Amino acid sequence: MAALPVIRMSHEEWAAKIVAGDRRAIARAISAVENGDAAGVALLKLLFQKASPAYLIGITGSPGVGKSTLVEKLALEYRRQGSRVGIVAVDPSSPFSGGAILGDRIRMQSLSGDAGVYIRSMATRGQLGGLAPTAHDVVTVLEAAGCQVVLIETVGVGQDEVEVARLADATALLLVPGMGDDVQTFKAGVMEIADLFVINKADRPGADRVEQEVAAMLSVVPQRDTWRPPVVKTVATTGEGITALRETLDRFQVFGQESALSVKRQQAKWRGRLLELLRQTLFEKAVAERLRDGAIDRYVDEVRQHRRDPHSVVEEIVGEGRKSKVKS
Amino acid sequence: MAALPVIRMSHEEWAAKIVAGDRRAIARAISAVENGDAAGVALLKLLFQKASPAYLIGITGSPGVGKSTLVEKLALEYRRQGSRVGIVAVDPSSPFSGGAILGDRIRMQSLSGDAGVYIRSMATRGQLGGLAPTAHDVVTVLEAAGCQVVLIETVGVGQDEVEVARLADATALLLVPGMGDDVQTFKAGVMEIADLFVINKADRPGADRVEQEVAAMLSVVPQRDTWRPPVVKTVATTGEGITALRETLDRFQVFGQESALSVKRQQAKWRGRLLELLRQTLFEKAVAERLRDGAIDRYVDEVRQHRRDPHSVVEEIVGEGRKSKVKS
Repeated sequence: MAALPVIRMSHEEWAAKIVAGDRRAIARAISAVENGDAAGVALLKLLFQKASPAYLIGITGSPGVGKSTLVEKLALEYRRQGSRVGIVAVDPSSPFSGGAILGDRIRMQSLSGDAGVYIRSMATRGQLGGLAPTAHDVVTVLEAAGCQVVLIETVGVGQDEVEVARLADATALLLVPGMGDDVQTFKAGVMEIADLFVINKADRPGADRVEQEVAAMLSVVPQRDTWRPPVVKTVATTGEGITALRETLDRFQVFGQESALSVKRQQAKWRGRLLELLRQTLFEKAVAERLRDGAIDRYVDEVRQHRRDPHSVVEEIVGEGRKSKVKS
Repeated sequence: MAALPVIRMSHEEWAAKIVAGDRRAIARAISAVENGDAAGVALLKLLFQKASPAYLIGITGSPGVGKSTLVEKLALEYRRQGSRVGIVAVDPSSPFSGGAILGDRIRMQSLSGDAGVYIRSMATRGQLGGLAPTAHDVVTVLEAAGCQVVLIETVGVGQDEVEVARLADATALLLVPGMGDDVQTFKAGVMEIADLFVINKADRPGADRVEQEVAAMLSVVPQRDTWRPPVVKTVATTGEGITALRETLDRFQVFGQESALSVKRQQAKWRGRLLELLRQTLFEKAVAERLRDGAIDRYVDEVRQHRRDPHSVVEEIVGEGRKSKVKS
């Protein structure tokens, strides 16, 4: 975000603006929750109560399969259905600079003038990796802003898919014709998390072969529930197959509600979120209370020089916390 | 590991066997530290003091670039130099089954009869993803067992590279000729973490083009220190270029020592490890003390039904911990 003017207003006023769809208030809110500061947390508490759950759709797949274009066209399709749409694009980040590598790209030009679409690029953050832990909170802001559908796009393969599967109500895995066997073999590892498969660029040679490979892989993956992940063919650049994709996603949503799958998913999601938030809260509290004045640097050097082992050091840090509590 | 007989012995006896190179004792130790149980922690404290730091070499790259074969040949090369060698192969894991997808593969046949090589496949674990958090501890076991070199191979792209870069003293990124431009573009994101580049399968057409692309990408990446990441061409299947790769790795090791780069790296590594261990220890303690008797399930349902927001719930859990402490 470029610098926004600081506007003095209460959290209640701010929340009301977000619910009214004020784009600047929404952008500021997303920045605040990404920063995880106290203002962001106070705002989130208000927004969470105002938010109605959106249909969260994860779009994932290797680089180059056309995720961004497909997300753009799918957003347009949902707009035609009258839904307000949020888009969260997760970028991989560098371990050293800590920032987004791709940054906020100039993307999805066809959506840029549409007041019913909110687009946000997020960096993944440090060691928790994959989907940024704050993505949950960004979704809450978008839900409070009235989005009925949120598309979550992840760049990259591997851990990202895992995180999306936890957050999303539905996960679509994109494949394209012409990827090497090696890549398809690796993909077998994420077969389990896909609720549906999209063969994009299906006008290229080999689309049928990919479809057969998906069918073959599905036959060896343990069947979850009674949903058999369907395969949808698309050509995102032309919009071909996008309506069929949306209809398949709608069908999965109904299936989830009728089979109580969505309740199970939501329980798993919120359990993960609560435990992660607990982990983070405890940690930040401990660092603030127990590792002041460069204490961590002294510990690091002791361990680096093999004078003490990491487990003993951490036991001391945790124990010291208790000791100082007894004193106070 | 298949079932090993339970042998009653003290941690001191166990540690002594590991230092003596007893393969069964080493295998049991790695299992114990992977499980993170109390016996494992007690053993680690002893082993850490007996361990001399090995040269930790991360080998990373997309599926299909030939990492396993290269690791095997590089291990043989270091064996010829008289070094004892450990190999840690990190496998991606499924979010639902929690286990390794690839499992312990039958791999690296040429090393299987060599008493100076220890090979261990590890699954990545849940949400922390990428390189398993216990990889540090597995390395400690291998160091105590006398390994001077530990090769850490990661399957997959993305977050894995980040984790390897944190743990390893040197990170080699493998590329191959003939990958699409999309993949190479994505790879730009991990350019920063590579200390050297290996173009494997360099007998295939296009090796020179990949080398030019690497050079072009390096020219736009901010220069770290005074080390310019070299490019080594290999054909791992025939062993071509492996000696040159080892010599380049040796040169980087010397560079790191002379430039104090290795001290900076080690500080960053141990800082990350200590903070991660602190995070995990605090969390496990809190779950044991504050979330007994299905308390988490009640919180999950309150949040899922939008009756309470996650931040308020976590504040209550952390606060309750404090309250109960006052009472006792």
